[in-house]
Amino acid sequence: MAENTPVSTGLRGQSAGSTALCTVGKSGSGLTYRGYDIHDLAEHARFEEVAYLLLKGKLPTQAELDAYVSKLKGLRDLPQPVKTVLEQIPADAHPMDVMRTGASMLGNLETEESFEEQQDIADRLVAVLPSIICYWYRYTHDGVRIETQSDDDSVGGHFLHLLHGKPASERHERVMNVSLILYAEHEFNASTFSARVCASTLSDIHSCVTGAIGTLRGPLHGGANEAAMAMIENWQSPEEAEREILGMLARKERIMGFGHAIYRESDPRNAIIKRWSKRLAEDAGDTRLYPVSERCEEVMWREKKLFCNADFFHASAYHFMGIPTKLFTPIFVCSRVTGWCAHVFEQRAGNRIIRPNADYVGPEPQEWLPIERRS
Amino acid sequence: MAENTPVSTGLRGQSAGSTALCTVGKSGSGLTYRGYDIHDLAEHARFEEVAYLLLKGKLPTQAELDAYVSKLKGLRDLPQPVKTVLEQIPADAHPMDVMRTGASMLGNLETEESFEEQQDIADRLVAVLPSIICYWYRYTHDGVRIETQSDDDSVGGHFLHLLHGKPASERHERVMNVSLILYAEHEFNASTFSARVCASTLSDIHSCVTGAIGTLRGPLHGGANEAAMAMIENWQSPEEAEREILGMLARKERIMGFGHAIYRESDPRNAIIKRWSKRLAEDAGDTRLYPVSERCEEVMWREKKLFCNADFFHASAYHFMGIPTKLFTPIFVCSRVTGWCAHVFEQRAGNRIIRPNADYVGPEPQEWLPIERRS
Repeated sequence: MAENTPVSTGLRGQSAGSTALCTVGKSGSGLTYRGYDIHDLAEHARFEEVAYLLLKGKLPTQAELDAYVSKLKGLRDLPQPVKTVLEQIPADAHPMDVMRTGASMLGNLETEESFEEQQDIADRLVAVLPSIICYWYRYTHDGVRIETQSDDDSVGGHFLHLLHGKPASERHERVMNVSLILYAEHEFNASTFSARVCASTLSDIHSCVTGAIGTLRGPLHGGANEAAMAMIENWQSPEEAEREILGMLARKERIMGFGHAIYRESDPRNAIIKRWSKRLAEDAGDTRLYPVSERCEEVMWREKKLFCNADFFHASAYHFMGIPTKLFTPIFVCSRVTGWCAHVFEQRAGNRIIRPNADYVGPEPQEWLPIERRS
Repeated sequence: MAENTPVSTGLRGQSAGSTALCTVGKSGSGLTYRGYDIHDLAEHARFEEVAYLLLKGKLPTQAELDAYVSKLKGLRDLPQPVKTVLEQIPADAHPMDVMRTGASMLGNLETEESFEEQQDIADRLVAVLPSIICYWYRYTHDGVRIETQSDDDSVGGHFLHLLHGKPASERHERVMNVSLILYAEHEFNASTFSARVCASTLSDIHSCVTGAIGTLRGPLHGGANEAAMAMIENWQSPEEAEREILGMLARKERIMGFGHAIYRESDPRNAIIKRWSKRLAEDAGDTRLYPVSERCEEVMWREKKLFCNADFFHASAYHFMGIPTKLFTPIFVCSRVTGWCAHVFEQRAGNRIIRPNADYVGPEPQEWLPIERRS
């Protein structure tokens, strides 16, 4: 039998199950969470409302939302052993490794003993993940042990407060809110799918989320907004951006933040975050980063018919809010944890262990070869 | 549109890619690693030889094996921050959460910066995972900070040495060796598949292994040997075992350690570990646990035509070597990490991001509903 190089088909176009949570690109560009259009959610809802929608199955009444916000506010503090663990992680570690380790450590202390606890564990993770990353960041970069409890109403406000040591402006809190909504859920993307594979063995939520964080860490998945930032921050003007982009295209270099595995015409999240990035640029008196970003968008469409995905204008938006580039992907985690957990619940409710077949392309049966006869 | 309950098909019978590493159940019962039959490997090889086969692609010469054994011996020590983290984890934590956290923490300190490091990172994990679980276990259960470096030649001997605080007998070292070989690799099982999903985003090995540990933790995957032990240790005689098994069958209770998702006729690993369990029983003068196990096997076959899988006689074998039941699944990790890493290498070499489709069964498009109008 001839041996072939093993290849991954990536399951592209194959169904791996069903979901009631999300549609992606149904009309070529749309995105819905439980039937609600992403434009409506980003315009009208707050992130905690969307988390409720994903995790509890419906939009909350005012009383339900108030209770939920209050519950999340009470779940932000870190147990001392988690703080001790975070203090062991060096300043130059990969922030996604920090998130992964923090979530895993929490699982030792607040173990999910029964699936009846799943809602509470998910809420705890939504509330506490911003505390995990900010505690580590401030300890290793600013040398302070911050208080992780805050009185901010929103997850996004809490994050910015811990990061900057003061409450965020109303505008910044609103943009964080929109950003967290945009990243909350995206059907069977790789990190969500890894959470479902884990859930299918009936493992606990901390394992599912820990695995999903590790999967999101890969440069083909999370991290595109960081890569976009690293690119655009070098350019001083739209003209320089255009010149450099054309050079990268000529050299066939990969340009992050454009195109998408599923969307064919546009990413519906782009127009939304772009609008907010523009407002933040105006607030900040920026005359460089936003125009540079716009020019990149124009050139990529003109030259390659490639559209900006959700990540591209997130780079400038986050930057205008004073968020260090290395924390962009951890924010993605703070948002997507809602989608991950909702998928874990769904997998558990109609479970079959996820165990595909493989096509064997290896050596045919081999006679045992004693060690002295090998070369 | 009518909504349906989301269900997982588990990708059963669907190919998710190709592999040159393993065949499972090709003739209804066989198991090969890179073409070598599991019977030959368990009879003639040592675990480090099998790890080499899986990770480096061929059986080693004597010089290569000597160098590899020597390399692994030099990679057993834990960095102080990992020890500090393990000391933060309580004695009643789930040992798989400990493994997951230890592997994740190591990734912060010894980050894979380039895929050129993948062989070294995999070797480090093979060498160090037994140290992680034993350090935590001995610290939290015996109150001692053990030395994690040992001079034992084998991974299995190292594990038993750290666990018991003295070198293992030749027989016990040999059985650990066989056990680690039997569990090393099993194609696209759920934990391996989760490692490949993670690898497909081009994430790092620590993320892949951390995710795989969390997936193996689920009771439908790892843990069957622990469940088998918890069952048989209650029974004082074969007669009691038969009576109880018949009762469990009548009550349609799940009996762990029997049958398999892929094998149809028998699990080739069972006969091998059963033979070793018998020898250990004789050494130990056991007149209860082994006869009880044999009777379970007879009754399950007679009543249900269900055969023992790899896990069932592992329970008694591990028990005879003085291994606490809660460490059975962590041993599985110490073995399967070789298969996981080999699959990560393979995924990287012919990669496409693993991103399946989902069938949408949720609500049709919803009008936005202002919060005051919800109920």
